Amino acid sequence: MKTLQLDLGERSYPIYIGADLIGRADLTTPHVSGERVAIVTNETVAPFYLGRTSAAFAAYNPIDVVLPDGEKYKTLDVLNRIFDALLKNRCDRRTTLVALGGGVIGDMTGFAAATYQRGVPFIQVPTTLLAQVDSSVGGKTGVNHPLGKNMIGAFYQPRAVIVDTSSLNTLPDRELSAGLAEVIKYGLIRDAEFFAWLEQNIDKLLTRDTNVLAYAIERSCRNKAEVVTADERESGVRALLNLGHTFGHAIETGLGYGEWLHGEAVGAGMALAADMSRRLGWLRDADVARIQRLLQRARLPVNAPAPMTPERFMDLMSVDKKVQAGKLRLVLLKGIGEAVITDKFPATALDETLRAARAA
Amino acid sequence: MKTLQLDLGERSYPIYIGADLIGRADLTTPHVSGERVAIVTNETVAPFYLGRTSAAFAAYNPIDVVLPDGEKYKTLDVLNRIFDALLKNRCDRRTTLVALGGGVIGDMTGFAAATYQRGVPFIQVPTTLLAQVDSSVGGKTGVNHPLGKNMIGAFYQPRAVIVDTSSLNTLPDRELSAGLAEVIKYGLIRDAEFFAWLEQNIDKLLTRDTNVLAYAIERSCRNKAEVVTADERESGVRALLNLGHTFGHAIETGLGYGEWLHGEAVGAGMALAADMSRRLGWLRDADVARIQRLLQRARLPVNAPAPMTPERFMDLMSVDKKVQAGKLRLVLLKGIGEAVITDKFPATALDETLRAARAA
Repeated sequence: MKTLQLDLGERSYPIYIGADLIGRADLTTPHVSGERVAIVTNETVAPFYLGRTSAAFAAYNPIDVVLPDGEKYKTLDVLNRIFDALLKNRCDRRTTLVALGGGVIGDMTGFAAATYQRGVPFIQVPTTLLAQVDSSVGGKTGVNHPLGKNMIGAFYQPRAVIVDTSSLNTLPDRELSAGLAEVIKYGLIRDAEFFAWLEQNIDKLLTRDTNVLAYAIERSCRNKAEVVTADERESGVRALLNLGHTFGHAIETGLGYGEWLHGEAVGAGMALAADMSRRLGWLRDADVARIQRLLQRARLPVNAPAPMTPERFMDLMSVDKKVQAGKLRLVLLKGIGEAVITDKFPATALDETLRAARAA
Repeated sequence: MKTLQLDLGERSYPIYIGADLIGRADLTTPHVSGERVAIVTNETVAPFYLGRTSAAFAAYNPIDVVLPDGEKYKTLDVLNRIFDALLKNRCDRRTTLVALGGGVIGDMTGFAAATYQRGVPFIQVPTTLLAQVDSSVGGKTGVNHPLGKNMIGAFYQPRAVIVDTSSLNTLPDRELSAGLAEVIKYGLIRDAEFFAWLEQNIDKLLTRDTNVLAYAIERSCRNKAEVVTADERESGVRALLNLGHTFGHAIETGLGYGEWLHGEAVGAGMALAADMSRRLGWLRDADVARIQRLLQRARLPVNAPAPMTPERFMDLMSVDKKVQAGKLRLVLLKGIGEAVITDKFPATALDETLRAARAA
């Protein structure tokens, strides 16, 4: 087991990474405060891991909240089901929530923890690759709104993140690829050496080589932790983690949540960002080709889906959280391993990118 | 105009108190960040004050969100209408929300600000006495749940509180009395001299003597600011501000939100707390009589409503935010001007208090 530390002063916490960690009371117990635990999970994950997780918290009389599975359930209404369960079970302020599942469960449980009785502690137990390398780390929590993804939420840090790499054995292939999109992202924005390593090891990742996966997770978490430590509330460098996300969120909202997985939309979004960077003269053709090839080998889309016209993209991107003073800001690439956030680009470059993305 | 300062480090903010402050752009403008303002109010307040408020923010292209009036609308569903309006109007992260109304509007708008795009600034413009002396100051925000009051929320401080005492001219008598409950509360928990002053001046308050009201508001806000400065997140002394609230919240939830006004329920709750303190031998009969008399002169209830059986009280109070380890903690009185929070009381004292409260 490896332990990384996310250093945020009094809000610091450990990230444990290793095999068979779910169910280890010695890891979880030190991070519970209060007398009660509530485990939030979904119908897909519960049959595999809820029993072992409950056992690890047996000393805290745990209750379960089992939600339906999927991005389309990441809503205020479904969030309210968590509150219903907590109140029906008389959970007081000294209750610790546990998020057992992928990004949707982690984001919703974290937001429930941020707002139940004005704030209770929570622990992340991510069971998808995407949640393990990205969404469970860093304290972004929230739900979607029909008009925009993650529009309602809070920055609220967990007390610990427990990454059980064995849980990836039950992950569907499509979800594995979606998680690889966020892994590749770290290479693109700040870790060129890792990008090259991914080019060497992508096939082993797809066949779920245990050691290779564990290394990719650890290096991703290390990158994430460094960025979040430098800028917890996204006033600067943290925005670079959104490479591909402005395009990606528009795809997710535009198609209807859950049609494409988040990681798939981010994969296509990164391909668009690379193409636009090339059009601006910032990225060489050869680098764009490397990026597209790695995404494709990871079985991720590199084009926008047919319903996403340039007009629809522009409409949906106008409510992006990075918009400032009515100006859209995008994360683009100046090279593999070097991202920038900018509103200084000709509108034509964006328009051409969106047109080409669909035609391709 | 008086200016108090709530000192919370980088989250410090001014409380302006005076006549005809609504509409004064010189007070509001320095506290706007970004380019856009969204004013949230309700159907009752809008005809009186929305025009002038919008004029004060004219430079920021303000949008209005007009909600229905009443405690029963302080829900996640109605909160979502604020998000709908913000997103439809393409409000980005650099939007400042303005809460124009009573406690319900202030609490909901504050919570919307805490969670819209993970946090935008907001300004409180309270127009009821209760909001001016209590709920607009100190950063408690949130909504109700059918099983418990204020169960979903966040600590989130405004950038400024603008108390226009002239707005009380349009306040219904019943709302004025409800606000006086929180004013009396400060006297009871920490300011015996103010309690005696209130005994002298209660009739002038009820006839809305401008100077007397302004003094009561200022002294209340000063008390509130001192407590919040000492304990922003209610890990200690701030809990004393909940005198009467555990009983009161049970009444509000038990009767259905909006049947009794919040201040009315708190008035009855403080009478119960005084009676229970007497039963414990902590408060003299003469002091209990003074408390009851002042509440009655303020036209507040001093008994529990008929539907609230002791069993119903106990059931509803079991989810109170001050419950710890399954033990109910109550704010009680050791004298006028001296409150304590305690779980050390015989169950019989509470039971007798609840039985007597209903029979009376």
